[in-house]
Amino acid sequence: MDLSQVIRNVADFPSKGILFRDVTPLLARPEALREACERMVAPFRDARIDRVLAIESRGFLFGAPMALMLGAGFVPLRKPGKLPCATLREAYTLEYGEAALEVHADAVAPGQRVLLVDDVLATGGTLAAAGSLAGRLGAEVAGAAVLIELEGLRGRARLPGLRVESVLRY
Amino acid sequence: MDLSQVIRNVADFPSKGILFRDVTPLLARPEALREACERMVAPFRDARIDRVLAIESRGFLFGAPMALMLGAGFVPLRKPGKLPCATLREAYTLEYGEAALEVHADAVAPGQRVLLVDDVLATGGTLAAAGSLAGRLGAEVAGAAVLIELEGLRGRARLPGLRVESVLRY
Repeated sequence: MDLSQVIRNVADFPSKGILFRDVTPLLARPEALREACERMVAPFRDARIDRVLAIESRGFLFGAPMALMLGAGFVPLRKPGKLPCATLREAYTLEYGEAALEVHADAVAPGQRVLLVDDVLATGGTLAAAGSLAGRLGAEVAGAAVLIELEGLRGRARLPGLRVESVLRY
Repeated sequence: MDLSQVIRNVADFPSKGILFRDVTPLLARPEALREACERMVAPFRDARIDRVLAIESRGFLFGAPMALMLGAGFVPLRKPGKLPCATLREAYTLEYGEAALEVHADAVAPGQRVLLVDDVLATGGTLAAAGSLAGRLGAEVAGAAVLIELEGLRGRARLPGLRVESVLRY
């Protein structure tokens, strides 16, 4: 299946000049959602992943099925104030604004192998923050899987040493 | 598996007097996440579900695997301002505060059968809003599946005519 056919391009969202890649048509087709998750998982099938660390909110949509496919635990990286127990926090800048991610301090045991998951790699700020959180937890970061890579924003350049695998590139 | 053993009870979150049921220990165990999704899906296996409508954010974690299990499309019900195309919006009150949900206006075709999904049924305000959105889209609502039902808050009473199936009841 050509997954790019089920991505909808929306001009000027969330702000003027941004071309937004809307994954809702892909989500609406179970065979497309399954294929997207399988293709995101494929490069890491033999990477002995213990935990999938997925980024709120759209990363959850891919990360949860991927964790089941890998037989790995799922760990949410959430916006501030959502996780009820002790957390680590990492602030970052993103394509349009500022934000922060939190993770439960007990979510990963030192030495566990983790896979970072998000829907889109844009400037790389979010994944850099996720990688930093994983490192602070003592995890071994096997890599990052994204559905869509916006190559023009050169996010990879901001992620030195991180293996990044993307399914669709624009 | 006794799924209640992988739910963590956190006092006074997000505010004083609330006993929060934290699902992150369940998510961290793939066999528990799979069983939770399978048990949420089970009552609706033969209900010919076309679309799973899951509520941001924790509803996404269960709704995405459930959509794959049912061979149904996935539709996100999101917080305001997140969906890029034309939306319907429904405001509601919840256990601690006010909120609104949005859905893409083209997410469901009239007559399609939908299943509403969230992690917790508390006062029922969120599911009532989700059901209202589904109705405005012309969907036939087969029911709602939640992992946890907080019976003391009597959410069912606020959802007349909606079939609600829960896995764990407190």
